[in-house]
This record gives sequence, C-alpha cells and structure tokens, in this order.
Amino acid sequence: MSGLVTLGESMAALCSTTPGPLRQASHLQLSIAGAESNVAIGVRRLGHPAAWIGRVGADEFGSLVLERLRAEQVDVTGARTDPDAPTGLLIKEQRTPDVTRVQYYRAGSAGSRLRPDDLTDSPAAELVADAAVLHFTGITPLLSASAAAAVTRAVELATAAGVPVSLDINHRSALGSPDGLREHLRPLIPHLSYLFGGEDELLLLADTDDEHEAVRRLRGPEIVIKRGARGATVHAPLSDGAEAPLHAPAVPVRAVDPVGAGDAFVAGYLAGLLDGAARAERLRLGCLTGAFAVSVASDWSGLPTRDELHLLDAAPGTTLR
Amino acid sequence: MSGLVTLGESMAALCSTTPGPLRQASHLQLSIAGAESNVAIGVRRLGHPAAWIGRVGADEFGSLVLERLRAEQVDVTGARTDPDAPTGLLIKEQRTPDVTRVQYYRAGSAGSRLRPDDLTDSPAAELVADAAVLHFTGITPLLSASAAAAVTRAVELATAAGVPVSLDINHRSALGSPDGLREHLRPLIPHLSYLFGGEDELLLLADTDDEHEAVRRLRGPEIVIKRGARGATVHAPLSDGAEAPLHAPAVPVRAVDPVGAGDAFVAGYLAGLLDGAARAERLRLGCLTGAFAVSVASDWSGLPTRDELHLLDAAPGTTLR
Amino acid sequence: MSGLVTLGESMAALCSTTPGPLRQASHLQLSIAGAESNVAIGVRRLGHPAAWIGRVGADEFGSLVLERLRAEQVDVTGARTDPDAPTGLLIKEQRTPDVTRVQYYRAGSAGSRLRPDDLTDSPAAELVADAAVLHFTGITPLLSASAAAAVTRAVELATAAGVPVSLDINHRSALGSPDGLREHLRPLIPHLSYLFGGEDELLLLADTDDEHEAVRRLRGPEIVIKRGARGATVHAPLSDGAEAPLHAPAVPVRAVDPVGAGDAFVAGYLAGLLDGAARAERLRLGCLTGAFAVSVASDWSGLPTRDELHLLDAAPGTTLR
Amino acid sequence: MSGLVTLGESMAALCSTTPGPLRQASHLQLSIAGAESNVAIGVRRLGHPAAWIGRVGADEFGSLVLERLRAEQVDVTGARTDPDAPTGLLIKEQRTPDVTRVQYYRAGSAGSRLRPDDLTDSPAAELVADAAVLHFTGITPLLSASAAAAVTRAVELATAAGVPVSLDINHRSALGSPDGLREHLRPLIPHLSYLFGGEDELLLLADTDDEHEAVRRLRGPEIVIKRGARGATVHAPLSDGAEAPLHAPAVPVRAVDPVGAGDAFVAGYLAGLLDGAARAERLRLGCLTGAFAVSVASDWSGLPTRDELHLLDAAPGTTLR
Amino acid sequence: MSGLVTLGESMAALCSTTPGPLRQASHLQLSIAGAESNVAIGVRRLGHPAAWIGRVGADEFGSLVLERLRAEQVDVTGARTDPDAPTGLLIKEQRTPDVTRVQYYRAGSAGSRLRPDDLTDSPAAELVADAAVLHFTGITPLLSASAAAAVTRAVELATAAGVPVSLDINHRSALGSPDGLREHLRPLIPHLSYLFGGEDELLLLADTDDEHEAVRRLRGPEIVIKRGARGATVHAPLSDGAEAPLHAPAVPVRAVDPVGAGDAFVAGYLAGLLDGAARAERLRLGCLTGAFAVSVASDWSGLPTRDELHLLDAAPGTTLR
Amino acid sequence: MSGLVTLGESMAALCSTTPGPLRQASHLQLSIAGAESNVAIGVRRLGHPAAWIGRVGADEFGSLVLERLRAEQVDVTGARTDPDAPTGLLIKEQRTPDVTRVQYYRAGSAGSRLRPDDLTDSPAAELVADAAVLHFTGITPLLSASAAAAVTRAVELATAAGVPVSLDINHRSALGSPDGLREHLRPLIPHLSYLFGGEDELLLLADTDDEHEAVRRLRGPEIVIKRGARGATVHAPLSDGAEAPLHAPAVPVRAVDPVGAGDAFVAGYLAGLLDGAARAERLRLGCLTGAFAVSVASDWSGLPTRDELHLLDAAPGTTLR
Repeated sequence: MSGLVTLGESMAALCSTTPGPLRQASHLQLSIAGAESNVAIGVRRLGHPAAWIGRVGADEFGSLVLERLRAEQVDVTGARTDPDAPTGLLIKEQRTPDVTRVQYYRAGSAGSRLRPDDLTDSPAAELVADAAVLHFTGITPLLSASAAAAVTRAVELATAAGVPVSLDINHRSALGSPDGLREHLRPLIPHLSYLFGGEDELLLLADTDDEHEAVRRLRGPEIVIKRGARGATVHAPLSDGAEAPLHAPAVPVRAVDPVGAGDAFVAGYLAGLLDGAARAERLRLGCLTGAFAVSVASDWSGLPTRDELHLLDAAPGTTLR
Repeated sequence: MSGLVTLGESMAALCSTTPGPLRQASHLQLSIAGAESNVAIGVRRLGHPAAWIGRVGADEFGSLVLERLRAEQVDVTGARTDPDAPTGLLIKEQRTPDVTRVQYYRAGSAGSRLRPDDLTDSPAAELVADAAVLHFTGITPLLSASAAAAVTRAVELATAAGVPVSLDINHRSALGSPDGLREHLRPLIPHLSYLFGGEDELLLLADTDDEHEAVRRLRGPEIVIKRGARGATVHAPLSDGAEAPLHAPAVPVRAVDPVGAGDAFVAGYLAGLLDGAARAERLRLGCLTGAFAVSVASDWSGLPTRDELHLLDAAPGTTLR
Repeated sequence: MSGLVTLGESMAALCSTTPGPLRQASHLQLSIAGAESNVAIGVRRLGHPAAWIGRVGADEFGSLVLERLRAEQVDVTGARTDPDAPTGLLIKEQRTPDVTRVQYYRAGSAGSRLRPDDLTDSPAAELVADAAVLHFTGITPLLSASAAAAVTRAVELATAAGVPVSLDINHRSALGSPDGLREHLRPLIPHLSYLFGGEDELLLLADTDDEHEAVRRLRGPEIVIKRGARGATVHAPLSDGAEAPLHAPAVPVRAVDPVGAGDAFVAGYLAGLLDGAARAERLRLGCLTGAFAVSVASDWSGLPTRDELHLLDAAPGTTLR
Repeated sequence: MSGLVTLGESMAALCSTTPGPLRQASHLQLSIAGAESNVAIGVRRLGHPAAWIGRVGADEFGSLVLERLRAEQVDVTGARTDPDAPTGLLIKEQRTPDVTRVQYYRAGSAGSRLRPDDLTDSPAAELVADAAVLHFTGITPLLSASAAAAVTRAVELATAAGVPVSLDINHRSALGSPDGLREHLRPLIPHLSYLFGGEDELLLLADTDDEHEAVRRLRGPEIVIKRGARGATVHAPLSDGAEAPLHAPAVPVRAVDPVGAGDAFVAGYLAGLLDGAARAERLRLGCLTGAFAVSVASDWSGLPTRDELHLLDAAPGTTLR
Repeated sequence: MSGLVTLGESMAALCSTTPGPLRQASHLQLSIAGAESNVAIGVRRLGHPAAWIGRVGADEFGSLVLERLRAEQVDVTGARTDPDAPTGLLIKEQRTPDVTRVQYYRAGSAGSRLRPDDLTDSPAAELVADAAVLHFTGITPLLSASAAAAVTRAVELATAAGVPVSLDINHRSALGSPDGLREHLRPLIPHLSYLFGGEDELLLLADTDDEHEAVRRLRGPEIVIKRGARGATVHAPLSDGAEAPLHAPAVPVRAVDPVGAGDAFVAGYLAGLLDGAARAERLRLGCLTGAFAVSVASDWSGLPTRDELHLLDAAPGTTLR
Repeated sequence: MSGLVTLGESMAALCSTTPGPLRQASHLQLSIAGAESNVAIGVRRLGHPAAWIGRVGADEFGSLVLERLRAEQVDVTGARTDPDAPTGLLIKEQRTPDVTRVQYYRAGSAGSRLRPDDLTDSPAAELVADAAVLHFTGITPLLSASAAAAVTRAVELATAAGVPVSLDINHRSALGSPDGLREHLRPLIPHLSYLFGGEDELLLLADTDDEHEAVRRLRGPEIVIKRGARGATVHAPLSDGAEAPLHAPAVPVRAVDPVGAGDAFVAGYLAGLLDGAARAERLRLGCLTGAFAVSVASDWSGLPTRDELHLLDAAPGTTLR
C-alpha cells in the first residue's frame, strides 16, 4: 500500500432523479455517498492504490457500500461491519436544476461509531502507516466524540510514520456550528501538509471574512482553494516561502449536478501528487476531474479513469466511434 | 375561508418525459392539470387558503384530481363528481427541449359540464361569497355554454359580496377563435379588479396590435402583463390614476418546462395580494414563483412553499446540507 | 390480397403496469388497442396477409396506430386519417392480478366516424372484395350509426364477392345494452360463415340462458364458443348437418393478462382457416395463440409468429439457448 | 367525527420493486407506511370518517405522509410536525416473491416522540372523545416511553368518553422482546373492546403455546384471530357469554405482497363495525379487504373503496369494460 | 419508386439514457441505428419515397430493424434476412452531456455480409434503377469486401440508369484507417453527383489539411460541408462553373444529443433536392432537420415530418395548445 | 486460496424485464452472465474463497464484469483484459413467464480467446494449484480451440497439484453439436472428481437414452443429476462402491426465472463440499441455493449469503421485521 488512505463515513444514498420536490418523486435512485470514499474512488480510478477506513452496519446498505468500494478496487480491509447500528443514509433532492438539498439519517449510525480502537492493532493501522498520503475531511470529527478521537489517532499514526496528512474542510451545517468545526479542526492544522476548502469554508475556519487574512492565518500546509465554476487556487506551503499562488480555471462543461465536484477535485489533485506532478499540473488534474463529476448526476460515478481524461479536452459535442 | 376561490376544469395529464415525438414514447407520466387548480395550489403552498370549484368524472382520473388537490390542502368541498361524463384529459408532448405540444380530450368532459346550478345553494356559493379574491381564466367560458354561464354566476356572486375578481386571459386556440374569447370575456371586464395576460393575449383581447393601446382599452382593472423570460409589468387600476407602470425582471434559472409558468406567476402575484403586499412585491413574488415552475417538468409540482422561496435567491449551483 | 380483411376502431392504449388503483400509478404504458386490429396482427404474424380498415385522427396517437400496424405488416391502405376528430383512447387498469378495468375516450373519436363512404370507390372496397375472409366484431356497429352502416356495407360487398364473413360478438357494455347489440347483429347473422363468442355473449345474442338453445337459434354459421381457461368448442355450420361439436382444452400457461386472449383465439382460428386446416386444427391453433396472448401484458404484443408456436408446447420453465 | 381514530407512527417507505437483494436494486419506490394509518386509510375508503394522530418531521418525508393522508381524506388535524426530529423511514426488500424483509430508521424519529401532551388541550383530544372507535397497535407503546404514555392517555380519554377501544397486537421484534410487549399491552387489555392478532402474536401475548388457553386468558374483549391464507376467527367478548367462535375463509387471490394484509383485515372488520354489521359480516369484510391488500405491492394503495368490493367476488380473470 | 434508395447496415442500438459510465447504467434503451436508414427515415418523413437495402439476421434484433423501418414507411422489399449471421449491435454511451462514445458488435454481422448478388435479379436492383437518387455512406465499403463490391454494383446500376449518386463520407475509425477509406471511396468520386462530409472528413478524404485544397481536389460532385453548430456550406458541382459557395447557419436549439445530426442534415438536403428546391433552400432544410435531430436523444426518432418543420422557426419556449 | 477456482467466459447480459417479444421491449436491463462466474459468486456468498479465470475486453462491458466480480469478492487476479477483442454479450428474452430465449454475441469475443498461456507463469496457475476444487463447464471447451486447450491445461495443473476437478456439462446447442461436446468432454472424465448435469445432458454425454446406463458409463466421478423442479440425485463415486444414490426434492418456491438455477445448485453443492459436509447435506444446500436463484430474475443476483439460507425454510409469505 503506497497510495491514499482515508477514513470517514460512507452511506447509502437515495436520490431523486428529476427536478422537483422529493415528496412527489415516485422513486429514488439507490447509490452510495461519502466525501472520503468519493476521494478514494477518484484516486483509485486514476491508477493509484486507495483504501477506505470506516464502519458500516450489518445490513443491505452496509453491504452496498462495501460492494461498491470493492468494485472500485478501493481497499476495505480496514473497514468494519458494526452489528449494533444501521448504515447511515443520505437523501438527495434535486429541487431545481440548480438547487440540491440533502438530508441525513446518520445520527447513531454505524459510520458515526468509528473509534480509535478501529485503528489499533488492526489492518487499518498498518494501512495508515504505509500510506503515501492520509486524507480526511471536516465531516468525520463532527460525527461523534469517538469519531473525532479516531481522526486524531489516525493523524498521530500518520505523523509518526512520516505520512503527509491532507484535510478537506467540507463543512456540513447539519453536523454542527462553525465553532464546533473550528474547535475540532484547528488543533490538527499543524499536522497537515495539505488543506483543501471552498472559499467560504476557509473564511469560516480562519474566522475572518478576508481571504488573504484566512490564508495567512491557516498557512503552514499547502492551501488549495476550490472555487467551483471559477476554478481553483493553490498557495504553496509555508516551507516553500514566497512562491506566488497559482490559479487554474474550471473546465467548461454542461453541469448536471454539482454535488461531489469538490471531492472529485481533491481526488484529482491528490492523484497528481501521487503521480509526482508539480502544483500546476495537480491543479489542472483537479479541475479536470471535477469537470467529470459535475457532468454526471452521481457524486462519484462520473469520476474519470486515467484514459478518459482526454475526453473533456476534446471539442464539445464530440462523438467517439 | 378568506383566501382564493377559483373555478374551472382540472384534468388528468399524461406527459412524455423526454424530448421526441409522443408516438414514440414508451410511457407517459400521470399527473393532473388545470390552469385554475394550478393557481389554487400555488396560493395554498404560499400559505393562504384556496378552494377549487369544478366537476370531475366518477372515474379514476376524477379521483386522481380530487386526491391531488386534497393532498395540497386545496378546499374541494365545492367540487362535484358528475356520474355521466368522464374526467377530461390533457396529453403533453415534449417535442424538443424548447417545444411543447398539448392535445385535449375534454369535449363533453365532466369539467366542461360545469353549470350555474353548481354555484346555487351549494358549498361553492358560500366559498365565493366568503373569498378574499375570486379568480378565473379565459378557458372556462369557452368550455361550454353552461360553463360560461357558471362563470358569469360566480362573478355576480363575488361582486354582490364585494369580493374582488381576477381574470387570467389564458387563450387556448383549441377551444375557440379570438372572436369567441372577446365575446365571452369583454362583458366581464367591468367587474374585474385584476386582469392577467401574456403580451399576445392582451393584444388579442383588446383587438389591437399596440400594447399601449391595449392597456388603454382594457384598463379599469389592474393589468398585469406576463412576459415570460422578460419578466412582467403591472399597470395600476384606473382608480389609482397616473401611477407609472412597474416592471420586474424574470429570475434567471435553467428552464426545464415553460408550461405552468404563467399560472405560477399569477399564484405568486395573488398570494402577494393576500399577504397585503404592495405591487412591486407582488410582481417579485410572481416572478419568483414562475421561476420555480419552469425549473420542474410538471405544471404545478415545482411550486414553492413559503420557506422555499429563498432557494432561488441563492447563488446558482447551491447545495444545501 | 388473399387474406383477412377487418374493419373497426383502433385506439391508443394507456395501461398501468403493476396491480393497483390506476389513479396511484406514476406512469402509464403507451401502446395501441382494438379488437379487430389485434386479430389482423395475429393473422399476419402467422403468415397470412391481413388488412385493417378504419379511421384515426390527425394526431400523434393516430400516427402511433398506423406506425404499429405498418410495423406488423398489416395493410393500412384502406385506413383514413380524419382531420376533424381525435384518435380514440383506451385506459387499462390492472386493479389486481386478476381484475382488469377498462375506460374509453372514444365518443366522437375518428374511429367512431367510420362510414359507408369509406368503403366506396376506395382501396378499402377492393380489399374487401379480394379478401379470403372478412372479419368484424360487435363493437363496430355500436360505435355510431355511420359505423353500423359501414359494417353493413362491408358485409354486402363481401357477400357480393363471395367472401366468407366472420363475426366475433365482443360485447362491450360501455357501448350499449344487449338490446342494441341484438338489434345490430341479428340481421347480419344470415350473412355469416363464422360466429365467435364467449359463453355469455352467445346467450346474450340469442336471448336465452341455455347454451344448447343459443346454438340452435344462432346456427347457420359455424359457431365457435370461447371458454377462456376451459378451452373452446366449435359447432359445424348448419350446412354440415349433424356433425358433432368439437372441444379443445386451453393450453396451460401462467397468465399475465387475460385481455386480448379472445382476439388472439380468433386470429389463430382464422389463420388455421387460411391455412386450409380442419376444424380440430383451427381450434388447436386458436387455443395456442390465445395462450401466447395471456402470457404477455399487452393485448397483441405477445402474439406468436409461426415459428414460435412450438414454444408453448415445450415443457414449462424451458430455456432455449 | 364519528368514525375511527387511531394514533401511531407513519413513515416514508422505500421499497424494492422486484425480487432480489435490496443492495442490488437500482432504485426504490417511495411511498408511506404505518400500521395505524393503513387502518385509517382502509376505513376511510370504505366510507367512514377516520383520523390519524401522530408526529412527522419538518421535512419532505413528513410532508409526504401528511399529503398522502389528506389525499385519502384521513383527518390529520390531530397530527403534529416536530421541528426537532426527522420523519421515520421503513426500507422494504422483496427478497424473493415469498420473503419480505423490513428495516427501520425510526430510532429518535419524530413519530417516536409522540407524547401525552399531544393529546391534551388539542384537536387530538377532541377527536378521541368524539370517536366511534379508538384503534391502536402494539407498535406504538414500544416506540418510546413517551409514546407508551401517549397511548395510555388516549385509552383513558376514550374510556372516559365511552368510546370502545381496539388493539391490534402487531408485534415487531425489531422494537423489543415479547416481554416488553406483554408488559406494555397487558395492562391495557381490561380497557379493550376488540383485540386483533395473528396466531403467534396471540400466543405470545398470552404467554402460552395453546390457542384455546390464549383466548381463555385474554378474553374480555372480542378476540379476532388473523390466520392469513387460512382466513380469520372471531371469539365473541366475554359479555356475550357462550357464543361459538365464527370462522371465515380467506378470499382466494394471486398474492403479490402479504405486507399490509393484517392492517387491511382490521380496516375491513372495523368498517363493518361502523356499518353496524354483525360479526360474520365483519369477518367477511375483513377477509375481502385483506384480499385486496395482498393483490397489490403497496401496503395500503390496493385497499378497496366500497364500490370496488364486488370485484374480488367476480370470477378470476374478469375484465370489466 | 421515384425517391431515395440507400444501402448499408442497420443495427439494433442499445443506449444509456443518462450521462455517466455505461458500465454503471442499470438499463439500456433499445432502438435501431444505421446512418443510411437514418437518412431514409428522414427523407420519408419529409414526404418522399425512400427504400433501404441491406441484411439483417433472423433474430429479434433483425425483426426490430425491419419493423421500425416499415413503421416509418421505408420500403424494405430490397432487404434480406440472413439466417447465418446475427444482426449487428451498436452500444451508445452518454459519457457526459457533451461526450458520446459508441462501440459496435458488427464484425461478421448479417449487415456486413451484404454482397453484389443482393442487387442482382432482385427487387433491390429495380429499386436502384428506378430511384431519384441513390445514397450511400463511407461506412458500407469498409464493412467487408463483399459489402464494398455491393456498393460498387449499386453505383454501377445507378449510373447505368442515369440515377444521380450521393455519398456521405461518414468516417468511422473503428472500421478502418483513413487509407482504407480513401482506397474505397476515391474510385467512386467520379460517379458522384453529391458528396457530403464533415470538415475533418473532407480533409481526410482529400489527404490535405487545407479545406480549399480539399474542395479543389474532390470537386466534380456538388460538395456539401457539414459544420455542426457552425452550419453548412455547399460548393456547386464543377459543371456549374464559378458559382460561389453558399453558407447557412445552424438553427439554434438546446442540443440533447449530437449523434444523428449529420444524417439528419443529409436527409433534409436530399429531401430538398427531391422537392426540386434550389441549393440555398436545400441547405436551410438540411440545417433545420439537423436541429430536430440534436433536440432528441435518439439518432432518428426526432426527425421532423413536413408539418413539424415550422416548430423550430417559432420562438424558443413555445407551447402549442 | 483454498476455495473454488473456475475458468470460463463471463459476459455482459442484456435482459428484457417483462414477458413478451424482445424486439418490443423499450429497454433491456444490464448485468453480467457466465455459468462459471455464477458458481464462483454462489460459493463466495456462502463464505468460501472463489476465483475466476478468464478474459474480458478493454471496454465498458469488460469493466462491468470485473467490477461485479470484485464487488462479490471473487478473486480476479487471474483474469486478463484483452485489448484486441470485445467482451461477449448475452441477450436474454423473457418470451413468456415460462419461456426464456437467449442469444449470444460471443464469436471472437475476448472471453473465447482464453488460451493455455493464460495459465502459465501467471497468478492463474498458482490459483489453480492452491485451490480446494477446480470447477469448469462444458461451455468453455466449445468456445474455441485455444479455450479448449486452456481447459485441458487447467485440469492438468489441478491434477498435478492433487486438486479435485468438477465439471458441469452445461450443454449450449448454440455452441456446437452433441458430438462436439462428447469429443471435448469425454477425455476429461477420468480426471474428474465431480460431474454435474441435467438429465438430458447426462444422456447426451453418455450417448444413451437410459439414465441408468448413462450413470454406468460415466461413473468414476461422483455424479450429480440436476432435475429442476423435481430435485436432484447424487451417485457416489466408483471408489465408494455400492453406496445407494441419494435424492433430494426441490425447495418449493414461486419461480420467477429458471435461468441460473443449475449454476446455483452447483454452487450450493460445492460450498457444501468446501464445508466438509456429507453428500446428503450438499444436496440439500444445492437445492436450497437453486431455490433462491429461481426466485429472482437475475442469474446470480438472488444467490444467498450463508445467513439468508434459513429464509426459504420459513413458511411462505413470511415477513421479517
């Protein structure tokens, strides 16, 4: 194992398939969801090993999560099936073509019962120690106290083994206030090599409304700012001194569903890192991977394989046959 | 009952779900349709009482209409089930993303058999007399002679009770010529407080090809001109004298289906009226409600509740979770 | 043209696809329906020419009817498109696995406007004169006075040309009382060579509650009694004197939808006639074709081609590969 | 209000539509579920007033529950929307044509937060006091301590107002052990007029493995034993003394889905009670209503209206047109 | 027969219906495909006779192809059913809204077994000799040596009968290299009256990277250059001397699927030719027909009838009712 | 690896979902198929390691096959992706509820290009040598000469390593004559420990029409006769001498689709073998697993996990909640 290792909660996802109020849908599409597993799938499709650590319930939805990840060749030897709690659910409503709403059934879920022991004397511990990069998101520490402790444990294991650590802020207001987010994430910043976030999330974590000030406060790790349709920016880590920030524009595509684009960007960026690519190329890869994600309704299904990357460089309306 | 009361025909709607010739669809989606009930649903979702008066057949489609309206909390105590005629049908074809075609099976339908007696000594009569506003469209008088007489009766009842009357021209060429429309609607104009129409409909009703002249000829009621993607304009009633017309732009959204947008606009405008809002706010509410309607394939299913109104003020591509 | 010619009304069919109240279906399947065109399709699939005479509207549903019949190689050169009336509709509800309910929108339809002129100086007239058998059902004369006259005209044309005439009683209570049925069909009996009916229909036409008496009263033509899951019986025509009636059992299959089975039986029986087969073989072919029809939800889609007939002779649960 | 009043939890239901492991379904059908609301819908469709008391979340699934019940004309003025908890979910898997599995997401749900206050100084309290019969199931007391207390309150209110009380045992092993069931239900038995249960449930409640002994121990109320495909038996209440038990066979139909059949039976039986019918007729009505329920995949959608009852008395394979 | 005759391979088409990797689709839509039959359908819908010559297998997919073409009134009397090879398949993946990928199962297919004999002493030979125009594409000669020979035979037959010949280059890289394409098509150019191609195809056929040079090298026939969203250009045949090229812009529509647009353009252009229209009108008709094709997901289903052509001249968002 | 290893062809499967002619289906369901991978999935779900050796194309269907097998935890480290040939296809038509027809697109497929080298110096060779049982079917040797040689190589490798070999005759008439089957399979019989077949297949392989004679001729291996709805019989291997044959009845279930039942039986039987169970228990497990397979439309999706086995022992119509 020399690729990406991530930990968090993956859930069954039930999604409406046409715009309108969810309550008036006749059926919902069944899939899986989870910011961290999205990243793992994305990195794996781009050719690097990837492992996901977490818990699922001993139910059909838990089997669904594991089956899907195995199908994607994501290593789940560090995952556990918890017989005492159900797999979490995410309900996704396409209210209009431009507005998506999400509801969770994850309180008390198996995924939220992740705990430090899951990373002790377990395959998961070895996965972390052998990783090329450990990635987590701001969602996991807010799931429960034990999940927060598990994140801390994972970061400690990685740091001890010299494995660089990556964080995507991924603020979910349903899981807690900005105060809670700051409380959980700030102590971890000194251990980070890479910090990803949307513009608002960065301001929120740094508790300021000025982006320059936010970067100044948070810097230490390489900071990558996701700007959606306006592309992305990377600030080199403090250790690289005065290097100017780099910006890359988004790849223009017809967007079907923005959900998952941020995870896809991170997957592309980290796959670039595992490629040994320079920052500009990582940014380009992140934007390209993000473009695939928004082109498909699913959070992760549209993620590209390495040999599909050229498709969105081709002229629009291209037919390949 | 102190909200909106409307009368007209509601039908079962069978709609193709992807662009192309209807004859090559494998299935059609089943829903309900009716300009007046669309308005009633829209007003009700925005928090005001709404009642629908009309006839349905003693068949599954009639039950569908009543079930749906009851689900939406539209008062149907004034509706009748006619054992001697079938519920009308609307067939909707999405021929291309930008062209919708509609065919009706409403000749001899239960809905077209509405008659003045339906408003005599009936719950319907009380609903009209107690209403805050009576709304009807130019469709109903063209359905049949008895339906035209029923509309006249309703307007008389409303006028007698001091209830303001609202008309949306809603010209359907399938139901008759412009001459017929003018013949039926012009005598009612003196009784109107609110007159809604598209640009073409206004010209058609006023029998001119100049909008200023049309407004001049028709004024008396407040005149609201629906301009689709170009927004809407309101001319204050004659009683308000020289007040300048107000214009509001459309809310920019990715349009899925324009059908129902006009009804949605009227619902928003009249809900604003029932809120006690000023004209500018009514216009804004009409445009916002219309934007929801065009964002969803159904005529009415996408109509917003009060607490959803903010969704289309948010930035495009917003995900709420 | 030396095969079957039939005349009647074909409609668009909208059918629910799972058992339950139609009003709670989310969509309906789009197909075509019509007892006479079902028979034409069945005969054509079994290898004989078949033509359908009737009217459709100048709308998508009319195009659907003609496209489907052309696809099935049923000759529609005798069909007309009526610009002044819509194509009829049939709504089919699978209320439970064993109860099907049907509602029509055919009052004033193009199909019901069939008239004698449609068979004058027209390709239709030639089709009838050149046919090997003319088939019609008890539905058509009840559609309208002009349709009844058209049937009479067709029977006259056939008789004049020495073409044998076949009638399937096919009583639809929605179209009229038993009295009306008797009034229209009895005068035609002397012109018939073949008379098909269910047990109840035969009693109804003969106005008796004893089957032997019914056969005695109606005989003249060959009388074929369809008994559903209990098979079928044929009484030789009067001209064949004292020949004993023949009975054939139904072919045992898992029934999906009984609608269309009677038409399928007639198609098989008449195809046997066109084959030159004896009565026993015609009966067998009728029962076999009927078995295919009940095995598929559609009225006609499951009808067998000649080389599929052996499939239902094979053992149950057979897989062919 | 002089009909049935019931209280309990209604949920959104997500159901697979073809046999197989749920995890391999591509989509799930969205509907509602709840034993008590099933009974309310069934009674209402048979023509009697019915009201449902309970809590839903302030989310799309909560709106779905209320919309559906309103569509069915079930009175929901006694229902509350709880802003602090989500609507419960039921996941239904058709594992094989004969095996259905159900999973719940109802821990901490709005529905489980029902409490005695919901029946104090509220429309709910009046509904109970004015009811012709109060019905509840063994599910509700096991949802939470507050729900158990709410049931007790409702029974007290009914008893005080002279309203007869009906209980369907409806044991759900997911909600607790048989001991818990007995603990909660036995104290209520003295207040019951009607006690419904499956054979196993009756033994379980009476803590014996002999049905005669179970009836002996539990009697007092009229005891109705639901035996699925083997029909049902009623034992007259103790007050009716030595009257012999009555048995009715099940109505033979092709079963699509057994879930909901028990609730349907109770609905038919109680509707018969509200009709003023004798026990034998109530039993017949219960069996007939149950037959409709098993004929349709949904728990409640197949429930019959009064004028549909004759459909399952007709011969199998009947087509009505 | 005085219309268009074409020959080539038509296949069953299996298409994903929403953007994403094909392997993660739960189902594929079943239809037919074939560049030449697309053109035949397009010409036929615009009111001119059209015939298709080719082979299908003796299987359900072969029946599907013939049924569909018959439904469209395309003459298939010149088509053969080959008992020794399967019907070809086309698998179409909508990878993103803007990227379509196509895979074929046509090696050894019935369609690729077309041979000169199919045009000897056959209805096909007469169809060609009586045609108003013979159309083929660059796909057919690359299917197999016998198919190439059949194309040559058809061109010879047409030339001998004075029937003008039309070629659409339609390069499919899956079928062979540009060298192969040039080898097969160049010898046929002297026999052409009309040559259609995309910009790249023209360069490829002329073996140059300059469009002017390509036109210079290939001229002789009228050359029509399809430019997708940028419209189309026609260069008059050499015989018309110095006439300036004409250009027409594309008709602006919301594109759903670009596949089939080129065939649709050719159909419109050739229908214009059969109308006797001038070049400018042919171009306009080609662009309009192409606009219909891109508005619908299917390659051919969206093709317009003559009386639908006005629909895309109307204002966007038009609803006709 | 100490479980089952199998080799053969797995394909994409496209299946109609309701009874009727495939050509009239609007869409086909996408899944995978392959007798050998069905067995591997079945054994794996019952808790034993399982590996599949074979080739897929470098296309979406190939990815689908590998993704699905990985999801099922079937080891595919011995599988190869062949860049020069497409993945095979199976088209499955549910012609009636009792008749299934299958068509293949596997000539020249990647799967048919399996060759001995695939088992030389490869992970596949090690998998075979370490297996607890090697299983293959009569399909694979008939795919191509190289595939036949690969089977022979695998049997040699297994024999050399002392791994018992199992064969399921699985005659596919589409792949060759009974002569071909006998020619390929008979030389392998001396190497077999287990021989499975349907009644007809056994007669065909032994070239006799008497089952006793067939068993006499083929014996040596343990012979297991699959009798569908009539259960299964096992004849002990010759080495066990005079032991009487054992019979087990089929488990009664409502059959949805018989395809895959034979593979499921073999999976259950071999899983029993890997459990170390006696013959009677293996038979029982085979019949139980087969019952699950026929209860679900897919060939393999309905296969049971170990903890689901009890479900079909429960009473019919059981609901678990």
